[in-house]
Amino acid sequence: MYKIDLNSDLGESFGNYTIGMDEEIIKHVSSANVACGFHGGDPVVMEKTVAYCKEYNTAVGAHPGFLDLIGFGRRNMNVTPLEAKTYVKYQLGALMAFTTAQGLKIQHVKPHGALYNMAGVDYKLARAIADAIYEVDKNIILMAPSGSQMLKAGQDVGLRVASEVFADRGYTAQGTLVPRSEPGAFIHDEEEAIARVIRMIKEGKVKTNTGEDIDIKADSVCVHGDNPKAVEFVTKIKAALIAEGIEILPVGEIV
Amino acid sequence: MYKIDLNSDLGESFGNYTIGMDEEIIKHVSSANVACGFHGGDPVVMEKTVAYCKEYNTAVGAHPGFLDLIGFGRRNMNVTPLEAKTYVKYQLGALMAFTTAQGLKIQHVKPHGALYNMAGVDYKLARAIADAIYEVDKNIILMAPSGSQMLKAGQDVGLRVASEVFADRGYTAQGTLVPRSEPGAFIHDEEEAIARVIRMIKEGKVKTNTGEDIDIKADSVCVHGDNPKAVEFVTKIKAALIAEGIEILPVGEIV
Amino acid sequence: MYKIDLNSDLGESFGNYTIGMDEEIIKHVSSANVACGFHGGDPVVMEKTVAYCKEYNTAVGAHPGFLDLIGFGRRNMNVTPLEAKTYVKYQLGALMAFTTAQGLKIQHVKPHGALYNMAGVDYKLARAIADAIYEVDKNIILMAPSGSQMLKAGQDVGLRVASEVFADRGYTAQGTLVPRSEPGAFIHDEEEAIARVIRMIKEGKVKTNTGEDIDIKADSVCVHGDNPKAVEFVTKIKAALIAEGIEILPVGEIV
Amino acid sequence: MYKIDLNSDLGESFGNYTIGMDEEIIKHVSSANVACGFHGGDPVVMEKTVAYCKEYNTAVGAHPGFLDLIGFGRRNMNVTPLEAKTYVKYQLGALMAFTTAQGLKIQHVKPHGALYNMAGVDYKLARAIADAIYEVDKNIILMAPSGSQMLKAGQDVGLRVASEVFADRGYTAQGTLVPRSEPGAFIHDEEEAIARVIRMIKEGKVKTNTGEDIDIKADSVCVHGDNPKAVEFVTKIKAALIAEGIEILPVGEIV
Repeated sequence: MYKIDLNSDLGESFGNYTIGMDEEIIKHVSSANVACGFHGGDPVVMEKTVAYCKEYNTAVGAHPGFLDLIGFGRRNMNVTPLEAKTYVKYQLGALMAFTTAQGLKIQHVKPHGALYNMAGVDYKLARAIADAIYEVDKNIILMAPSGSQMLKAGQDVGLRVASEVFADRGYTAQGTLVPRSEPGAFIHDEEEAIARVIRMIKEGKVKTNTGEDIDIKADSVCVHGDNPKAVEFVTKIKAALIAEGIEILPVGEIV
Repeated sequence: MYKIDLNSDLGESFGNYTIGMDEEIIKHVSSANVACGFHGGDPVVMEKTVAYCKEYNTAVGAHPGFLDLIGFGRRNMNVTPLEAKTYVKYQLGALMAFTTAQGLKIQHVKPHGALYNMAGVDYKLARAIADAIYEVDKNIILMAPSGSQMLKAGQDVGLRVASEVFADRGYTAQGTLVPRSEPGAFIHDEEEAIARVIRMIKEGKVKTNTGEDIDIKADSVCVHGDNPKAVEFVTKIKAALIAEGIEILPVGEIV
Repeated sequence: MYKIDLNSDLGESFGNYTIGMDEEIIKHVSSANVACGFHGGDPVVMEKTVAYCKEYNTAVGAHPGFLDLIGFGRRNMNVTPLEAKTYVKYQLGALMAFTTAQGLKIQHVKPHGALYNMAGVDYKLARAIADAIYEVDKNIILMAPSGSQMLKAGQDVGLRVASEVFADRGYTAQGTLVPRSEPGAFIHDEEEAIARVIRMIKEGKVKTNTGEDIDIKADSVCVHGDNPKAVEFVTKIKAALIAEGIEILPVGEIV
Repeated sequence: MYKIDLNSDLGESFGNYTIGMDEEIIKHVSSANVACGFHGGDPVVMEKTVAYCKEYNTAVGAHPGFLDLIGFGRRNMNVTPLEAKTYVKYQLGALMAFTTAQGLKIQHVKPHGALYNMAGVDYKLARAIADAIYEVDKNIILMAPSGSQMLKAGQDVGLRVASEVFADRGYTAQGTLVPRSEPGAFIHDEEEAIARVIRMIKEGKVKTNTGEDIDIKADSVCVHGDNPKAVEFVTKIKAALIAEGIEILPVGEIV
């Protein structure tokens, strides 16, 4: 039987600032990527977000990012592998205090924003992240882009890895995302987006921006919860996946 | 046989900024209070400080503070109990990632600076800290000022607690430290300081700034490592304690 | 003829986080208190907010706060007068770069949140703030609560001062705001709130929570713009004031 | 007559953390680059550093950097030109509050660390910085590496510019610094370093790491004050320059 995880970024509010419709989206996804205070999130938000995860039986993942709150962790920073490694450990441990306190385990780590993008194509950085996770808890899954250096690094250190795909993004012939600034970056048609995901899961294929099919592995699909339309799309894709006989499960039960 | 722990604040360097003679002092103390990134310390420093603790067989404690780097965590802040609780969890968890990665356990938590002072006299704040520790790991010891609300809160939630005394500070008849701005706040004479500590350990008594003796419990003595003279004092007090037949041990083997 | 200023806190968004309906409210007020990056706001937001002020001909004020983004500057912090003085200078100067670049002048400074509350009753802190403003530009107005230590400190150093009142808050017999936790803290009825403001302006009186009238000076009324209802209230009170023959002007043209 | 400015980075201490022998070095240089709180420095330090500059009659420059205290502003960050522009304005304005309060003017702006390096070779970033300065005060000088995009951008917007050279660094045939990781990056011999600087000033030439001479313009020489040996070197180079008949002046009196 086909299986897929639906993951979403959560807990990115900070102090007096609220973003994301966390309570709405969390009911619909099987895995949550919880911000750890560097690019977003704060201790009070983390405690609350883990409590939501517990309430809705959503698996908890750490979502570590660069220490760049003003840039929301979306700006490339020239950190050393040692810095990246210790930043991931720090944030993972911080979240672990909240999961432990509520009797939960961390299922996975999915780096955020610029760290995710940079480590996707830089093996040294990817390896630093994988090492950090392995040293803290070797049972934690590393979630990373399909075909990335991060997946390779995770496998090299002995972690379970999960290959993440995007419903609303175009892919190049190399299996990377079409850059946001180029044509074909986004799949705007919802039906097409859903059909592509189903094909990724069932056939392991996706049509690229240059027209050919490539192999792609889909363990988890990233969905968004920052506006009502996004939440509505999640309910749609979920219904479509179930109708296709695809089971939605936390990624820890898939990989 | 009499036993005492010697603890010192370590790992308070940050990025390009170095403070404290960590490598010198760590050899001489039995317990380290490791800064967790809020008032001082950063992930790279934490990794290194935990490695020093492992190398010198010094027990590791978390030293959480207020999120006030510019004030070094020394300025009272009007946080809610929920904020304090989650701040302690966050910092404790962050440090735990580094100890776990190096095969060590956190022995104790000793709040830092203004958080230590405020929670010493405010039961609600103290209780929030004690709850945080208990929820994360109920085997961790709470180190707090002798006679404080923090010790009471720690006992109330079921934590082991350690009563901390100061070699270089005067005590009031109420068992609190003489405020820094008042006469008698500091014991400047090293021999007198050492004699006072020995008496606290052996007799459980200390002479106050108003001349009478009060009861005091000494499980751990706080020493400093921020300058060569401070490090020298530590070697002196250590030799004096040993000469008096007092065993120096991590506080986890005492309380 | 009666005159009043309407002021509102603006520019408190930060990075990826948006709060406040700045573009809506700015059209309706005569003075803007612009966040300066410590409790909220960031350089990009400051540039944009000053541009709005220019576009809508709203007078620009600096709104300096404590360096406590996670607490939105609302938590009392035990800073020294020197710290407060330099924090105000720093933030005032930072905002001044944006006003100068756009050919505008800073009209006033209104401290934010906990700094406003603390300096309202602590002359030393108030004096540090007043000194900071005077040293940077003695033509800037200090806006502070009616009857506060800040108004006194501002006058003592030779600044023009503006007495601020609140439409939606109750007053004690001492002329201070009824604490938020006590009955009578808020004036929920909009008509009553508007009537009170008109009386403050025309008669210089307000009825306290204990029933007697006290003297109060109203140079500026604080209004909010963080939700649609708040914006609607501003249009209402503005219409009512104008109907009463009260002219709405930037505070620099009043005091 | 030949003229040269000696500049040094100052005021980079932060809160409880001290770096740099500011009081020693400030007596020996003609221009100070004062940190503005993003990569180092804080409001109290800024006030004190400007006071030192006044006391020793050293010209004040702003030294804005990336908002990356943990990386000391030395890590490349992928900021937009708008971000860079507003960050420079913010920091320049903040420092200006302290100089204005003490009756001084800002002489120059010299970007710090990674911002300096990136803008040295990226015209768009350089232009954003130059625009920021020009909009705030068109009389301020932009100090930047000899032959850099920043000098070009400064000239393009109509600023006076100062070409900075390094006594202790090697140059490539393209006029850029030899990267720190490559042979020839540093000139270790003090006599050689001094001789090179004298030649840059008098002949406008420097020998590159590949052996040929290139043209170089020296308006200001960067010297360090972070350790006793560095301070000693400054006194040496100063004496040597004076002995050669070269006058040492703030850069504002040179360009």
